[in-house]
Amino acid sequence: MSLKLYFAPGACSFVPHVLLEMSGAEFEPSMVKLHKGEQNSDDYKAINPRGQVPVLVNNGQPVTQIVAIVLHLDQLFPQMGFLPTEALARAQAISTLAWMNNTVHPTFTHIFMPQKFSDQPEVQAALKPYNTQLFRGMLGELQALVKAAAAKGQPWLSGERFGPLDAYSLTLTRWGTIAGITPEEHPELWAFVQKVAAEPAVARVIERERLQLNMGRPA
Amino acid sequence: MSLKLYFAPGACSFVPHVLLEMSGAEFEPSMVKLHKGEQNSDDYKAINPRGQVPVLVNNGQPVTQIVAIVLHLDQLFPQMGFLPTEALARAQAISTLAWMNNTVHPTFTHIFMPQKFSDQPEVQAALKPYNTQLFRGMLGELQALVKAAAAKGQPWLSGERFGPLDAYSLTLTRWGTIAGITPEEHPELWAFVQKVAAEPAVARVIERERLQLNMGRPA
Ligand SMILES: N[C@@H](CCC(=O)N[C@@H](CS)C(=O)NCC(=O)O)C(=O)O
Ligand SMILES: N[C@@H](CCC(=O)N[C@@H](CS)C(=O)NCC(=O)O)C(=O)O
Repeated sequence: MSLKLYFAPGACSFVPHVLLEMSGAEFEPSMVKLHKGEQNSDDYKAINPRGQVPVLVNNGQPVTQIVAIVLHLDQLFPQMGFLPTEALARAQAISTLAWMNNTVHPTFTHIFMPQKFSDQPEVQAALKPYNTQLFRGMLGELQALVKAAAAKGQPWLSGERFGPLDAYSLTLTRWGTIAGITPEEHPELWAFVQKVAAEPAVARVIERERLQLNMGRPA
Repeated sequence: MSLKLYFAPGACSFVPHVLLEMSGAEFEPSMVKLHKGEQNSDDYKAINPRGQVPVLVNNGQPVTQIVAIVLHLDQLFPQMGFLPTEALARAQAISTLAWMNNTVHPTFTHIFMPQKFSDQPEVQAALKPYNTQLFRGMLGELQALVKAAAAKGQPWLSGERFGPLDAYSLTLTRWGTIAGITPEEHPELWAFVQKVAAEPAVARVIERERLQLNMGRPA
């Protein structure tokens, strides 16, 4: 097995990056500089024609889409318990993963890259505040999930084992601070994200990607 | 096992609706009238607080999100081969499913329900044509997948067996006709959707949901 991950610092590729690091398997992290447009080079488009990270290349075969990569890693490293094995607990974990990926994550895209949804500057400008409000509400939903897990005595969002939901929470909460949503607005979520960041494999990825968790500027 | 599916005619719930019908298992289809706002009733929000279809209720436990429901059905009915079992073919199928779900489907939401992304009527109006163009391009990508499968001699999008990608293709292509994208624009995709519609279980669901495939009005 040869594994290579194309990632960008701070991007959603953080999720598979953390799982790979945690697995202990050898893999090659390959950085794509989104701000330099490297995702749109011919070389990169040969790997992912849609010009996005993450891409996991397993034995020369590129797999795109976080959800597909996460499920593939779960299959490659069953001993890690990235997702619950009991059928309904597994379905709930995948449901939350899908929601993060198809709703929360794209809501941030409306704030950070509104040009994906309109070519008119005034429409792009109008999308930002409205979607920031939506994103704020979604981080509230995420905090409710954190509290529900804690109330059940679960250390992590999908149960006893660390998994993709925990890593994704860190990314989405960090993105919130870029959108001006402060840690004080969701204290339990923020405390949980600190715990995620303190896991040794997560801390190594944070260092490799050189991430700062709170991107908000002091007033 | 007791299975109940909350669906709305013509909505994305078509995907699990078809897979359940195809499985031959007993299940209770329960219609939610979105145009009457039934998804926002207290009763329905007790099942899905996010007020959306589909919801699969398995032995009293609600599972939301198409991706999670599809993977759960694949686990419940392994004999149906809804998804490939070989690891990389499976990852590719889930990748395409995730793309349909997190990119193509939400692009249509910008056309059909722009109020989800802005409360300003002029922004909503501006989102429609731009996202219609994006959606047109995505149906082109979908047609390319159909042609690639045919070139490999595969009867269905993920291989030898009918699966969620085939059902989702029908829904997305049908939505295209609502957005004014005509069948003539993607003839091979349209021919493939006719083949999907002719599968006996699909035909039964089309009848139960009373769907018309081409929603475009003659000029
Ligand atoms: N649906 C994709 C989304 C991937 C995505 O949004 N990638 C972003 C970074 S978070 C990206 O590469 N953006 C660069 C661009 O679109 O130019 C997934 O789930 O993997
Ligand atoms: N991310 C959800 C999306 C579900 C969705 O978009 N449902 C739509 C119908 S296609 C709905 O219920 N809309 C009603 C509403 O939002 O009020 C999934 O994958 O299941």
